Amino acid sequence: HISKLPNVETTIFSVMSKLAKKHDAINLSQGFPDFGSDQKLIDLVCKAMNSGYNQYAPMAGNQELREAIAKKIELLYGSIYHPENEITITAGATQAIFTIINTFVKPNDEVIIFRPAYDSYQPAVTINGGKTISIQLKAPSFSVDWVEVKQKVNSRTRMIIINTPHNPSGTVFSKSDMLKLQEITRNTNIIVLSDEVYEHMIYDGEKHQSACLFPDLKSRSFVVASFCKTFHNTGWRIGYCCAPKELMKAFMQLHQFNVFCVHHPTQKGIADYMQNPKHYLDLPEFYQKKRDLFLNLIKDSRFKFTPSKGTYFQVLEYSEITQEYDVDLAKKLTIESGIASIPLSVFNDDNLDNKVLRFCFAKTDETLKKAADILNTI
Amino acid sequence: HISKLPNVETTIFSVMSKLAKKHDAINLSQGFPDFGSDQKLIDLVCKAMNSGYNQYAPMAGNQELREAIAKKIELLYGSIYHPENEITITAGATQAIFTIINTFVKPNDEVIIFRPAYDSYQPAVTINGGKTISIQLKAPSFSVDWVEVKQKVNSRTRMIIINTPHNPSGTVFSKSDMLKLQEITRNTNIIVLSDEVYEHMIYDGEKHQSACLFPDLKSRSFVVASFCKTFHNTGWRIGYCCAPKELMKAFMQLHQFNVFCVHHPTQKGIADYMQNPKHYLDLPEFYQKKRDLFLNLIKDSRFKFTPSKGTYFQVLEYSEITQEYDVDLAKKLTIESGIASIPLSVFNDDNLDNKVLRFCFAKTDETLKKAADILNTI
Ligand SMILES: CSCCC(=O)C(=O)O
Ligand SMILES: CSCCC(=O)C(=O)O
Repeated sequence: HISKLPNVETTIFSVMSKLAKKHDAINLSQGFPDFGSDQKLIDLVCKAMNSGYNQYAPMAGNQELREAIAKKIELLYGSIYHPENEITITAGATQAIFTIINTFVKPNDEVIIFRPAYDSYQPAVTINGGKTISIQLKAPSFSVDWVEVKQKVNSRTRMIIINTPHNPSGTVFSKSDMLKLQEITRNTNIIVLSDEVYEHMIYDGEKHQSACLFPDLKSRSFVVASFCKTFHNTGWRIGYCCAPKELMKAFMQLHQFNVFCVHHPTQKGIADYMQNPKHYLDLPEFYQKKRDLFLNLIKDSRFKFTPSKGTYFQVLEYSEITQEYDVDLAKKLTIESGIASIPLSVFNDDNLDNKVLRFCFAKTDETLKKAADILNTI
Repeated sequence: HISKLPNVETTIFSVMSKLAKKHDAINLSQGFPDFGSDQKLIDLVCKAMNSGYNQYAPMAGNQELREAIAKKIELLYGSIYHPENEITITAGATQAIFTIINTFVKPNDEVIIFRPAYDSYQPAVTINGGKTISIQLKAPSFSVDWVEVKQKVNSRTRMIIINTPHNPSGTVFSKSDMLKLQEITRNTNIIVLSDEVYEHMIYDGEKHQSACLFPDLKSRSFVVASFCKTFHNTGWRIGYCCAPKELMKAFMQLHQFNVFCVHHPTQKGIADYMQNPKHYLDLPEFYQKKRDLFLNLIKDSRFKFTPSKGTYFQVLEYSEITQEYDVDLAKKLTIESGIASIPLSVFNDDNLDNKVLRFCFAKTDETLKKAADILNTI
């Protein structure tokens, strides 16, 4: 084989967005907003370009942005990361995840992931010779069986990847979940990769349980976050990760030779934008309104759901409508009904199919209404 | 060890730039211009941001940019790459290089590199379990012994990485070099990674010998190029690679899970900017003037040199001035004389020291004059 990943296909996000485009369907599949970002933010990035922020940033990222991140984390979680050597700006959260796995996973290492799992985790582990060990979140609540996790941890376990708020299910890890994770990993060499890109999208007054809130857990964790999701510019490819300095030092060895650094004027523009905390503090309310609008519009449809607790995704269960395989149904709805979604089975082992589709509600109210009109006829 | 790369240190480019900053030295070390990029280009990127190019680009990159690249390559080299599946936009040439190596190099594979070699090649090979096999370019001309290359090719050779125009030496591969490479790799499974980020910086009427000019070589090659170097915005992290579609297909398997895609508005802005071929056709003349100015200013210094044939770097030999180790000298000149450069030994096996420092002449005439004033006193 020419490829080291013979079984890896084009990511479902590209497949569905392409299909949506081809059939002019409403695209609630790939997670991105269909509204523009704040004009103030765009103006700040342009200003940075016009003020000469166009050459290499430091490898770890623009200093002001790292300081703004540290300030945000302290404000939200009361946790301290040092901008100097514990925070690195990355080319989207995806690159942070890829490089963390690349840095620590060796041949025959085991990596525990929770399924349905974001589709970049497994190939990144495989390419490093590692093996993923799956914990299946149980539909419909997508809750974790920590006894099973504990049973699956052993001396080969190098990493546990968690994701809260959880994409694609919309569930969130509770404080009790995090405490159990902390207990299970205590006194081990396990590294925790905590994918928290939807940290600002959490609803009904819940608090995001960041890994950095739990001191022992924090000491072994990379917390990964994204400005693309937070500030409605998924095409800007900018995120970051935080970790204790010994872990970050190892990460930088790879980071420097993968991307070296990230789009400098965007870093500077976001640093300036973050000086006003409202720009991230207002997000839960903003997206909760969208979730509520969407769910209210489809409450009489034949889909079943419990409201998403976090992320900007809502999963809808369709087993009372049809028994079709979710991938087939997602494609059929795109082509025939004009609405694109993401089937969940692609994120499960053996394509386990719970008859669930994921819809992105980061859309204008108008788009959500049009989408609901279609869903109500299905 | 916590790290898979225990011997890898912070890249020399960051080390020297940091030292230059600390001591307020003229920074001719890390390769970036100290002048702004074309205002027209900045305006086009801002325009793209203001016209909504802020969500995910297609994984392979903005379609118009891929078409502009294909057009440029046809114009310059008469070679055809299909925008649809043979060109991918990357987060700088560095990420292209990293992902190509990640895609193809397996444990125990051998990768031939030419030393002094850009410092990202070796760690990328090592992290994949591969082994670099060095060919030392012979100072002062830095020419290749192709008999040695042929001897070192064997059934374990998975890849040959070439770099022309060559950083750090400023030499270029001739047509005859490329033909020899083509002969050596004919009927093998060797993949050629041709790092051509300085393709537009070639002097004295020479023609750049791109790997895509040689059909058999092209069929096994990735050609890697950079907009950061070309358009004077190293902080924008945008480059690309071209390859036959079967090779590109394997590359995309990794690319999609490393960075997914690249800063979208920058892609669109560059696509628009490239509609005027003058923007890249004028570059050799622009940089040749800078080289000639710089060399003319230091012609009576105690450094020895032959004019750089390509790249925006000039190497200066100092053995008649001092026998100091080049790393020590580079640091001393930064701290005591106020001028930063890059020592070449860090790119050689066993830190072989030819008593050569590299100076970047992508600087304003004023900076070059100040730099020359210092060099003339040494
Ligand atoms: C990189 S495309 C995927 C976007 C996303 O995070 C999602 O839709 O889940
Ligand atoms: C990524 S920093 C290195 C810049 C560069 O290409 C060089 O100075 O050679």
